[in-house]
Amino acid sequence: MLLEAVYHRPKQNWSYAYDKQTVHLRIRTKKNDCIKVEAIAGDKYAWAFTMKSMEMRVFAQDSLYDYWETTVVPPFRRLRYAFRLTDASNGEQLIFIESGFIKELPEDPKNFFEYPFINPVDVFEPPAWVKDAVFYQIFPERFANGDPSLNPANVEKWGGKPTPSNFFGGDLQGVLDHLDYIAELGVNAIYFTPVFEATTNHKYDTHDYLKVDPHFGTNEKLKELVAACHERGIRVLLDAVFNHSGRTFPPFVDAQKNGKDSKYASWFHVREWPLQVVDRVPSYETFAFEPLMPKLNTENPEVKEYLLQVARYWIEEVGIDGWRLDVANEVDHQFWREFRQVVKGVNPEAYILGEIWHDSIMWLQGDQFDAVMNYPFTNAVLDFFGHQTLSAQSFADAIGKQLAAYPQQVTETAFNLLDSHDTPRLLTICEDNEAAMKLAALFQLTYPGTPCIYYGDEIGLNGAGDPDCRKCMIWESEKQNQELLSFYKQVIALRHSYKALRSSDISFLHTGAQETDGTLVYERRDGDERLLIALNARKQASKLELANSSGSSWTKLLTEGGAEHANDQAANALSLSLPGFSFIVLKCEN
Amino acid sequence: MLLEAVYHRPKQNWSYAYDKQTVHLRIRTKKNDCIKVEAIAGDKYAWAFTMKSMEMRVFAQDSLYDYWETTVVPPFRRLRYAFRLTDASNGEQLIFIESGFIKELPEDPKNFFEYPFINPVDVFEPPAWVKDAVFYQIFPERFANGDPSLNPANVEKWGGKPTPSNFFGGDLQGVLDHLDYIAELGVNAIYFTPVFEATTNHKYDTHDYLKVDPHFGTNEKLKELVAACHERGIRVLLDAVFNHSGRTFPPFVDAQKNGKDSKYASWFHVREWPLQVVDRVPSYETFAFEPLMPKLNTENPEVKEYLLQVARYWIEEVGIDGWRLDVANEVDHQFWREFRQVVKGVNPEAYILGEIWHDSIMWLQGDQFDAVMNYPFTNAVLDFFGHQTLSAQSFADAIGKQLAAYPQQVTETAFNLLDSHDTPRLLTICEDNEAAMKLAALFQLTYPGTPCIYYGDEIGLNGAGDPDCRKCMIWESEKQNQELLSFYKQVIALRHSYKALRSSDISFLHTGAQETDGTLVYERRDGDERLLIALNARKQASKLELANSSGSSWTKLLTEGGAEHANDQAANALSLSLPGFSFIVLKCEN
Repeated sequence: MLLEAVYHRPKQNWSYAYDKQTVHLRIRTKKNDCIKVEAIAGDKYAWAFTMKSMEMRVFAQDSLYDYWETTVVPPFRRLRYAFRLTDASNGEQLIFIESGFIKELPEDPKNFFEYPFINPVDVFEPPAWVKDAVFYQIFPERFANGDPSLNPANVEKWGGKPTPSNFFGGDLQGVLDHLDYIAELGVNAIYFTPVFEATTNHKYDTHDYLKVDPHFGTNEKLKELVAACHERGIRVLLDAVFNHSGRTFPPFVDAQKNGKDSKYASWFHVREWPLQVVDRVPSYETFAFEPLMPKLNTENPEVKEYLLQVARYWIEEVGIDGWRLDVANEVDHQFWREFRQVVKGVNPEAYILGEIWHDSIMWLQGDQFDAVMNYPFTNAVLDFFGHQTLSAQSFADAIGKQLAAYPQQVTETAFNLLDSHDTPRLLTICEDNEAAMKLAALFQLTYPGTPCIYYGDEIGLNGAGDPDCRKCMIWESEKQNQELLSFYKQVIALRHSYKALRSSDISFLHTGAQETDGTLVYERRDGDERLLIALNARKQASKLELANSSGSSWTKLLTEGGAEHANDQAANALSLSLPGFSFIVLKCEN
Repeated sequence: MLLEAVYHRPKQNWSYAYDKQTVHLRIRTKKNDCIKVEAIAGDKYAWAFTMKSMEMRVFAQDSLYDYWETTVVPPFRRLRYAFRLTDASNGEQLIFIESGFIKELPEDPKNFFEYPFINPVDVFEPPAWVKDAVFYQIFPERFANGDPSLNPANVEKWGGKPTPSNFFGGDLQGVLDHLDYIAELGVNAIYFTPVFEATTNHKYDTHDYLKVDPHFGTNEKLKELVAACHERGIRVLLDAVFNHSGRTFPPFVDAQKNGKDSKYASWFHVREWPLQVVDRVPSYETFAFEPLMPKLNTENPEVKEYLLQVARYWIEEVGIDGWRLDVANEVDHQFWREFRQVVKGVNPEAYILGEIWHDSIMWLQGDQFDAVMNYPFTNAVLDFFGHQTLSAQSFADAIGKQLAAYPQQVTETAFNLLDSHDTPRLLTICEDNEAAMKLAALFQLTYPGTPCIYYGDEIGLNGAGDPDCRKCMIWESEKQNQELLSFYKQVIALRHSYKALRSSDISFLHTGAQETDGTLVYERRDGDERLLIALNARKQASKLELANSSGSSWTKLLTEGGAEHANDQAANALSLSLPGFSFIVLKCEN
């Protein structure tokens, strides 16, 4: 047994309360190194009477490790535990406890691991609705122009080429006008990039946090839009740009004007007065080195009070369902903890979504965010389906690593995007290969978590990185890719129909053995409901037989590209034929 | 290279701000597997101009792993980083980044690890004084009877046999009377087990959190005691028993009497009304299964307000320097976060010490505790020096594992006790082998962190577990072990004299090779100051030569048991002769 590979550390993603009664225990071993792993757990004050052994299951794998999990309901909310590992090659057993490896299970569990007590307030329970949400991301300046009277002075013709600084006149009325379209797509939540008054087209340089940008509409119009969304069962997430303000934000203007004597001097992180830019480096902290985006001092009680009031205002007054937090990991943890208290205080069901592109475990312990924008997922999907730089096996490994990296509730509500206003469009990453793009979207929409579709992807909008990914939405139906739109609608509907597609239970049944073999077969389960998705993400056709010893009968729910299946009862197998860039979704009937 | 052994995960003990400018980066590899490890770090928005490579050092080792560390001062408070590992056997190099292992360092660091921003409020900075503190733990009922008029009715003769329920009349005046003794010992901080009104001799069943127990004195007397301590440069820590109250705590009495209708009904965790004990299991949550200690519902805003008022009161009104938190890990994290805000709000230098016997990383991130009672350290020391069940090498491994498990500031302020009112006495664990006991204390007092001496250990008090470890202090000097007392004074004074003994820099230079060889040699450093401690914790004598290629000259500071050294300039070596249970402390003179 490779001892160096064994890992467990209490709390985080290794032992955590899944709900107010249940603790999940997990451990990592070298891949294929153990034939069996058990958790031995009980109450520390009544060990002899409560101790029991539970077999664990491999719930995820990556290139190096197996990840094992079991579920425990502690009789008195406390848990002392150890792991018993059985070597796959020689049957040798070892006990793993906090102080290391031992050979025999001791009677006294004093050196075991401990989950001290399930305190309800510490249990990380993201809002229940998020698990069932399909999000649609809207960049308001480019979605629809519903009220030309609000157009900026220098507005360009709808559909023109986007530049970093031009305007096309998109607004909230435009969104209102197209709510039926959005509802028909099947999404039930919208994430808007910023809508508050700012100078740029993207509005990430806030001028007034309490006012909708006049080019987008009014606070009243936003309220009307949110109400109209809610009528259709669509929730609304706004973008909180609290890491930095814009350069026209009055406190910053005052600090620039009055320097050290400004009453807002401590609202920013000033390295040296006066506020200036020397050799392209501002004398104050900013987002990146962008002088137009001065970093807010979120430790300052006045700043905190101001921003928390903003957070509260839009929930209470306008009824939004949560916040997406821009550049969330550069703001202090303490601020986010207080932010959570305020937001959940006014709406316990509000969704708090941080923009973090990296490992986020320290923001996802229940005291800060409900989820983060899941870019590690994005990268894996794009590298396999789009850039095709990842093999099917490496893709499954990357996904397995993600599944193991977080508590189950994080997996269930992770914000799984494939593109955004910050990245090239999915279709462009797929080099305009629509079939490949569909497979990526199929995976996204049949994977645990909360998928988000970037406006226009569904009708074939393409574009490279910013500003090209911020093209105007196309509304002439003849110019929309109707076939693609119909695909999105079908797969979204499928996700809503089958709980198995929203559960966290996923197993990879087959991955293409060679680099050129893009076959991926995975099963999704929720209780007795079982769906199987088989796809081929490369041009070379593939055929395979899956062992089917339980004699299950599979029926087709959806297919494209000529993929076929056959229940081969005689051979106890399921046969699959997968031409290049095809897929099939099957449902188990017994 | 054993990839399965390589571990790094951002934040926690792997990448953390040590102060407002500095980040420590750490990585784990298989023991002796890498010849060199570098951190490659820079600002993510100016990578090409700021990127640099830093060689890391092995700062700790255990039985399986090497732990590497380096220090970085990010130019703009942000850090993107990777690790370059060089295989010891074949020179092969691998780059380790967030997405896994790669062969070449890419130009774009987008998939690297990230430390997003040093936000000052998140930086974990325990009070500076704690690093230099030597604590003395007092169990007030057994330390000294200074005011017989306060004696409980049924008081027993001082020095009698302690039982779980008897009283001897110790009180605060008794401590006041002996403050000179305490000061002369050299300690500069006292931790008192509970002093608030309660029914038992240990006072862990609080009746009134705002009143000193009448058998101990008055609030005024405590104030006088704290002031007298402060005059002598001694800080005072009280015991906050917030996990549970006593059964006579008026809200619990009310809940017992009025059941569901009590206005205090939600102050406790009630599984089922009425409050009763069935088959030895209370119908409400308690400490362990102890019906006399009902668990407080620290999520209830009224309970929170009450307890936080208590926390504030004793700091503001009486001037205590911090709190030791009883059963700290069974109370919710959210409560402790608010507790920290309140306590640091009234005294930023207050020390917050949690009672946790297990892995405590999730309480030691800067938002909750400053330190925990370091029982994993205790266990290792007792197993090596006392029970003698651990070899010198296994002991060094256990210590190395501890050093690697936490940020450096945690190591510097960990509360390193060898015994307490909850364990057998150190001398008893050492089977009354005074020489062995001295070695354990020597290690404790020359190790990073905050040592704590349990009252009476220094004069030879022995005793098995509770209640035997709670014997009355002996004040007749002829009955005190003066030789032991003098040893303690010397080693405490040594600790105060040399900063190297309080720094976190420790390296094990030699550990006995066989089970019977109790030799342990370690060096302590602070800048140019270098101390070397050589000891032999077994009866078999040992002689060794340490390579001394720098030609350092070592002089003796302290020795016992006949240990000797010789600077062997010709052989470029330091010779050590260590009879059984002997030690020598040396200082480098060049």
